[in-house]
Amino acid sequence: MAESTSVTVLGLGLMGTALAETLVANGHATTVWNRSAAKADPLVAKGAVRAATAAEAITASPLVVVCLSVYENADEILTGDVLAGRTVVQLTNGTPRQARALAERVTGHGARYVDGGIMAVPQMIGGPASLILYSGDEEAFEARKDVLAALGSPRFLGIDPGLAPLFDLALLSAMYGMYAGFQQAVALVRSEKVQATAIEPMITAWLTATMGGFSEQARALDAGEFGTDVSSVATSQVAFPGLIETYLEQGVDPGWLLALRDLLDRAVAEGHGHDGMARLITLLEQPPA
Amino acid sequence: MAESTSVTVLGLGLMGTALAETLVANGHATTVWNRSAAKADPLVAKGAVRAATAAEAITASPLVVVCLSVYENADEILTGDVLAGRTVVQLTNGTPRQARALAERVTGHGARYVDGGIMAVPQMIGGPASLILYSGDEEAFEARKDVLAALGSPRFLGIDPGLAPLFDLALLSAMYGMYAGFQQAVALVRSEKVQATAIEPMITAWLTATMGGFSEQARALDAGEFGTDVSSVATSQVAFPGLIETYLEQGVDPGWLLALRDLLDRAVAEGHGHDGMARLITLLEQPPA
Ligand SMILES: NC(=O)c1ccc[n+]([C@@H]2O[C@H](COP(=O)([O-])OP(=O)(O)OC[C@H]3O[C@@H](n4cnc5c(N)ncnc54)[C@H](OP(=O)(O)O)[C@@H]3O)[C@@H](O)[C@H]2O)c1
Ligand SMILES: NC(=O)c1ccc[n+]([C@@H]2O[C@H](COP(=O)([O-])OP(=O)(O)OC[C@H]3O[C@@H](n4cnc5c(N)ncnc54)[C@H](OP(=O)(O)O)[C@@H]3O)[C@@H](O)[C@H]2O)c1
Repeated sequence: MAESTSVTVLGLGLMGTALAETLVANGHATTVWNRSAAKADPLVAKGAVRAATAAEAITASPLVVVCLSVYENADEILTGDVLAGRTVVQLTNGTPRQARALAERVTGHGARYVDGGIMAVPQMIGGPASLILYSGDEEAFEARKDVLAALGSPRFLGIDPGLAPLFDLALLSAMYGMYAGFQQAVALVRSEKVQATAIEPMITAWLTATMGGFSEQARALDAGEFGTDVSSVATSQVAFPGLIETYLEQGVDPGWLLALRDLLDRAVAEGHGHDGMARLITLLEQPPA
Repeated sequence: MAESTSVTVLGLGLMGTALAETLVANGHATTVWNRSAAKADPLVAKGAVRAATAAEAITASPLVVVCLSVYENADEILTGDVLAGRTVVQLTNGTPRQARALAERVTGHGARYVDGGIMAVPQMIGGPASLILYSGDEEAFEARKDVLAALGSPRFLGIDPGLAPLFDLALLSAMYGMYAGFQQAVALVRSEKVQATAIEPMITAWLTATMGGFSEQARALDAGEFGTDVSSVATSQVAFPGLIETYLEQGVDPGWLLALRDLLDRAVAEGHGHDGMARLITLLEQPPA
């Protein structure tokens, strides 16, 4: 366990509460503040100290962890001379642009700024599967890393504060894609009265096996060499009309598959039919005007 | 190894060649036919027998495995009295409707019909990761299961011949979704000059962890109970504009995420904001008019 450090947590929603609880459980002197004060009650019962105002809470600790709904919530909270000399770790979800803007404002008040992206649900905080991405002031991160490690495995991505939200949104996109694929697959077989729980293990096994294709795609991109002897863009493009027709025949919305069909059509039209699927990534990087 | 059986393979493209090679390697007397006869040469060198016509090839064996580009290719090939008494195993990719139609035609000529979907690339045929889905004539499948097992783990889905293509297309949809998510994530971080090979292991680990969410969604669907204490539709719906804004700011095409945004908006508009993500599946099952 890290040496006991005073920590302040601003924002006691589902996630802020999980963060504060874990810090208390790890023996850190924890000061908490929430707009609706009553949400602090259970934490106070466990040993946290309630601050009457955000400024009072900030004053209480050298390390200030922030977890509000959106970045805009912090506008009136992370401000003023009270910030000077403190380290602000902002775990609210937002965009790289928002993180960079807040970093500039907070460091303008003499604080150190670390941005973070929590890749976990509240129930996972403090457990082995909790991953938290960080970026920004590396020295400040290193100095507080032991405390932060209580919340989840910390991973530092670089000194640009925008990197943590960028990776966070990238990983969320990957998850949404995987879930969207799962949802489409389940809807399709349910049209023939197959149970979702019957196909779920097959999907899990199949995706686990085909996930191996990521590394080929990543290597192709970094090398800029898109040839493939496994599965070409043209093979998928040719199969897509039948795939979509089947959804329509079964009365199921083909959803995002239509967007993927358009991207495959574009890839073939631009002469990339013989390339592997990694080619689609370079097309996303050059959106049509 | 299964008792040696005479098998015919019609179609010697990348996949048909892999199937025929594996059958020869497993000691089965294998007769092959391909429209362009030269593609049979390497197989003949390994011990396969070349047939001059498709009808001659069909006559040679009680078990006829078909692997052409598309179902339509089989129209002039799987026909006539030569089919009587044989088992046709059709591994060409197509739709449930096509499989049902071909089954009717082939059984009309006195043959038994099994449809199949190969969940593998040619390089995997005969190896441990090769999975092949089957449906149709269960008795014929059971009688030939040992021979078919040489090609990949056989999995029988039911007597409707359309089930194998249905599950095949469902699993492919799931894979396309996962790849689309991966591609979106990689394009996003590459906009900040991050290497694809640097984020790839993070994506793999993250998706492996979040894949655990499938079983909750499947159980919710089968039970018809959509409440969640993990992640609601509304939570995602609120986060989506920022996600899409970030793609636009980074100059990356948000691709299929726009379709998912529309689905999330629809879910909230129809009063399902507090439900878990499984709710999206029921919306796909009721496409807007
Ligand atoms: N929950 C998750 O699974 C999860 C996972 C990863 C990341 N996150 C991120 O963590 C952050 C917090 O999520 P959460 O689940 O804790 O949300 P939540 O339960 O909705 O809590 C939101 C918090 O923000 C506060 N807040 C909202 N508007 C405010 C304002 N104008 N001024 C001051 N405080 C304000 C709320 O205070 P009141 O109590 O007074 O309303 C509450 O403390 C979000 O950015 C979220 O994206 C959440
Ligand atoms: N390759 C894979 O990774 C993979 C994976 C799973 C499933 N599949 C499925 O397996 C099937 C075959 O794929 P493949 O990769 O072997 O394709 P391929 O290499 O393109 O081979 C196509 C085969 O179809 C024959 N063919 C095309 N049109 C014909 C016609 N009008 N009459 C007679 N024969 C005709 C070709 O004969 P010629 O040589 O004379 O042109 C060739 O034998 C497809 O349905 C595919 O979706 C493939």
